[in-house]
Amino acid sequence: MPFVAETATPPSERTKVKRLPDRGEYDRGAIDAILDEALVCHVGFPVDGQPYVIPTLHARVGEQLYLHGAPANRMLRTLRDGVDACVTVTLIDGLVLSRSWFHHSVNYRSVVVLGRAVEVTDQDEKLRALAALVEHIVPGRTEDARPPTDAELRATLVLSLPLAEASAKVRTGPAKEEESDLALDHWSGVVPLALDVSGEPAADSYVEPSAPVPDYVAALSAR
Amino acid sequence: MPFVAETATPPSERTKVKRLPDRGEYDRGAIDAILDEALVCHVGFPVDGQPYVIPTLHARVGEQLYLHGAPANRMLRTLRDGVDACVTVTLIDGLVLSRSWFHHSVNYRSVVVLGRAVEVTDQDEKLRALAALVEHIVPGRTEDARPPTDAELRATLVLSLPLAEASAKVRTGPAKEEESDLALDHWSGVVPLALDVSGEPAADSYVEPSAPVPDYVAALSAR
Repeated sequence: MPFVAETATPPSERTKVKRLPDRGEYDRGAIDAILDEALVCHVGFPVDGQPYVIPTLHARVGEQLYLHGAPANRMLRTLRDGVDACVTVTLIDGLVLSRSWFHHSVNYRSVVVLGRAVEVTDQDEKLRALAALVEHIVPGRTEDARPPTDAELRATLVLSLPLAEASAKVRTGPAKEEESDLALDHWSGVVPLALDVSGEPAADSYVEPSAPVPDYVAALSAR
Repeated sequence: MPFVAETATPPSERTKVKRLPDRGEYDRGAIDAILDEALVCHVGFPVDGQPYVIPTLHARVGEQLYLHGAPANRMLRTLRDGVDACVTVTLIDGLVLSRSWFHHSVNYRSVVVLGRAVEVTDQDEKLRALAALVEHIVPGRTEDARPPTDAELRATLVLSLPLAEASAKVRTGPAKEEESDLALDHWSGVVPLALDVSGEPAADSYVEPSAPVPDYVAALSAR
């Protein structure tokens, strides 16, 4: 199953996939789907010339990627100050076993976004972003939890990063074997990997023991 | 289940967890365990002042973290040139549902490594690093696949990053609720997440249909 690149919007010089360009994908639908499926992203930013990579929750609304946290959070403060940043999400789909050590690999879908984030100050947009972040954790949850108070809104910094410069990279299928290795008697193929959400939800000690797990939580394991 | 930080080796000023220091963990055993469990890492490095974050395989051997790829790979070439880099791994353990939007979170274990990588030129160390990378994908696989030829070794760049400056951050347990929210009638708790390796391994088209899946592959789903 060779990967076929679709090109809808031309990539920028910086987001063009440098190596193995047949793994690069620039279609906005593909990019959005990967961003939406990934629970967390990794944010790259410099502090005094030292790059840092920090995992955090994200949520996409249209052409914007939202990040949030405490106003004292160093990552968010650094990004708000207008530095060039990179946000990357990665979904791992399989282990790729080859007849040679050399061609072992991993199947994955990843998106790299470059850009500068800005603080969301409009209160309506801020509330929509926070709703999207909660819905990104569990779809349907915003309707079954208390929305933020004014004090909580003030205690939350929300940043918006435009998806103007983004690209996806996808690897699928088995290893690309050397012709001369095909006769070797080693099993070769793909071991599928996925996020397991079938574990039993654990209510905290304040939930009535008889209270059922909400339908939208139970639905997660059917995703 | 509140998180308890263990401190074995004091963190450097740069790897000390800035926010929520009770989530910071500096014990080498804890750091190693997270690095070993995570299949891929995210590498942060600058190119012309722009930070990039790229996912890649890693493997730890003692105090060294190894990365590898094609000699033309921009990330590896940049790192080899001696830039300050950051390698981060993240394991997602659960969705944390709170009675308030504000206290929603994710349970995770992450490690951040800062440092400069160097090229591995010693051929014995290079072979050990490549073996570790294959074993990191599937333990037991090196014995059941063809080791690299001299040409393949030359076509592989291996870098070593010392684990001298590393820290872990861990979040466990349910949401920290506001006292005044505890009476609210919203289900609250943790939905466990894990990597699902129980999918059916798919042999490539050159494997004899009657050939069994190797024991060490079947064992993955029992991990």
